[in-house]
Amino acid sequence: MRPIGVFDSGVGGLTVVKELIRQLPNENIVYFGDTARVPYGIKSKETVIRFSIENILFLLKHDVKFICVACNTVSSFALPEIKHHFRVPIVGVITPGAREAVYATRNKRVGVIGTKGTIKSRAYENEIRQFDPAVKVTAIACPLFVPFVEEGWLGGEVVTSVVRYYLKPLKEAGVDTLILGCTHYPLLKSVIQEVMGKKVTLIDSAKQVAVEVQEILSNEGLLNKKGKARHEFFVSDNPEWFSNLARRFLGRPLRNVKKVTNV
Amino acid sequence: MRPIGVFDSGVGGLTVVKELIRQLPNENIVYFGDTARVPYGIKSKETVIRFSIENILFLLKHDVKFICVACNTVSSFALPEIKHHFRVPIVGVITPGAREAVYATRNKRVGVIGTKGTIKSRAYENEIRQFDPAVKVTAIACPLFVPFVEEGWLGGEVVTSVVRYYLKPLKEAGVDTLILGCTHYPLLKSVIQEVMGKKVTLIDSAKQVAVEVQEILSNEGLLNKKGKARHEFFVSDNPEWFSNLARRFLGRPLRNVKKVTNV
Repeated sequence: MRPIGVFDSGVGGLTVVKELIRQLPNENIVYFGDTARVPYGIKSKETVIRFSIENILFLLKHDVKFICVACNTVSSFALPEIKHHFRVPIVGVITPGAREAVYATRNKRVGVIGTKGTIKSRAYENEIRQFDPAVKVTAIACPLFVPFVEEGWLGGEVVTSVVRYYLKPLKEAGVDTLILGCTHYPLLKSVIQEVMGKKVTLIDSAKQVAVEVQEILSNEGLLNKKGKARHEFFVSDNPEWFSNLARRFLGRPLRNVKKVTNV
Repeated sequence: MRPIGVFDSGVGGLTVVKELIRQLPNENIVYFGDTARVPYGIKSKETVIRFSIENILFLLKHDVKFICVACNTVSSFALPEIKHHFRVPIVGVITPGAREAVYATRNKRVGVIGTKGTIKSRAYENEIRQFDPAVKVTAIACPLFVPFVEEGWLGGEVVTSVVRYYLKPLKEAGVDTLILGCTHYPLLKSVIQEVMGKKVTLIDSAKQVAVEVQEILSNEGLLNKKGKARHEFFVSDNPEWFSNLARRFLGRPLRNVKKVTNV
C-alpha cells in the first residue's frame, strides 16, 4: 500500500506519472517537482547530485516503497553515483529507454536527443553499449525544446524549423530509432516524427520506465493490487503554474498541488 | 575603496557590469550569479524574494558599499519588498530604465518587454506612471528570448520570426520607445531594432543603471577615484559555462570565476 515516489526537476516527469497511472492503476503515487530550481539540464553534475539527494530525502519522508526518477538529466548524471547510498530501490529512465531502442533498431543506428547535461554524460551510449556493442549511437543536445514545450509551442513553422535544424545530424547518420531522452520531448512527438520520417521509431522513455517499474514491483511482491489509488503532488514553487501545465503533460488538470520547501 | 556588489540570477547581469566598468573604471566590483537556480523569470515572487535575500547576504560578506541588482525580475518582484530591510543602498534596473523611456518618448507610447515575472509585476508601468501618468504602456513577456541568447541564437530566420511574433502588439500599439526589460535582451538588439523599425528608440536598462550608480556614489561621496580596479566573479554553479558566456555579454572572456554555495 506504500506509495511510489516520483521526482523530476519540474513538470516533465508528469509524462512518466501518466504512464504509471495507466499501467499501474492501483498504485499510490507521491510526486515531487523541484520547480524552484528548474531546469536541471543546464546545471553541473555536482549540483544535480546535491538537488537529487534532497529530493530523495523528501520522498523518503513520505514512506515511499520505490523511487522512480522521472528526469533524464538526473538519471544520467546523478543516479549512478547515488542509487547505492539508499535502501529504497531507485530506477531511472535511461536503462528502460536504452533497452527498448536496442530492441527496436534494425540497422543498428540509434539516435538520442536530450538536454545538454544528459548528452554530455554519455549515459545512453554507455547503456546501449551494455546491451549491444555493435549499435552506433548519435547523440544531440536540443536545448530549445524544453522552452518550446513549456511555452506551449508544440508545432508550427518556427518549431518545425528548429526541430529540423537540431535533427539534421541524426538524419544524416541514418538512424532508424530515436530515443526521446527528455520527459518534455514526447509533447513534440508529431513534429519530430514528421521531420525524421514515418519509418523512424521514436522511443518514449516514460512508457518504458512504467513497464520496468511494473516488473520490479511484481518481482519483489510489492504490487498494490486493490483499493483506490491516491496521487499526491508537491512542488518547491509555483503550484498554479504547475497545475496549468499538468493538463499538457498529464492530459488532465491537477488540483491540490502543494508547495513545500525540500531543503 | 570598498567594492560595489552586483547580483543576477545568472549571466545576464554582466551587461550591467560591462557598463559599470565603462562608466566607473576605478570601482572594485564583486559579482554573484545564481547559476544553480537560474532562471528567476519563471518563478514566484515569494521564491525570488528568498533567493534575493540570500544573494544580498552573500555580497554583504564581501563588505560591499553599494548593491546593484542587475536582474529585472528581482528588481521588479523583490526589490520593493526588501530594499528597506538593509542599511546598504540597493538600486535596481527598473527606475533608471523607466525614467529614460519617459524622457525619450515623443508620442507617449512606451513598450516594455521582459520575462513573465517582470511583466506580471507591472513594475515598469507603475514606475512610468510616477514619472508621467499620461504615458501609455504596452508590456509583453517574451519567454523564448533568454533561451535564444543563452544558446547564442542572436539572429537568423527563426529568431527573427519569433521576435516578430512577440513584438506584433507593440507595433500595433504604435510605441516609439521600447524598454529592453531583461539583461539578456540587449544581445538581440539588432533583430529587435530591425523588427520595430529604425524610428523606435530602444532603452537598455544596463546603461541607465550605471548612470544612476555613478550619480548616487558621487552624491554620497563614495566614488573610488584612484587605483586599479579589481573585479571578482562568483557563481553558485557551472563556472566554466559562465566564463564562456561572459565573452558574449561582457565582450571579453573571464578567468578565475569562483564557485560558491551562497545558501
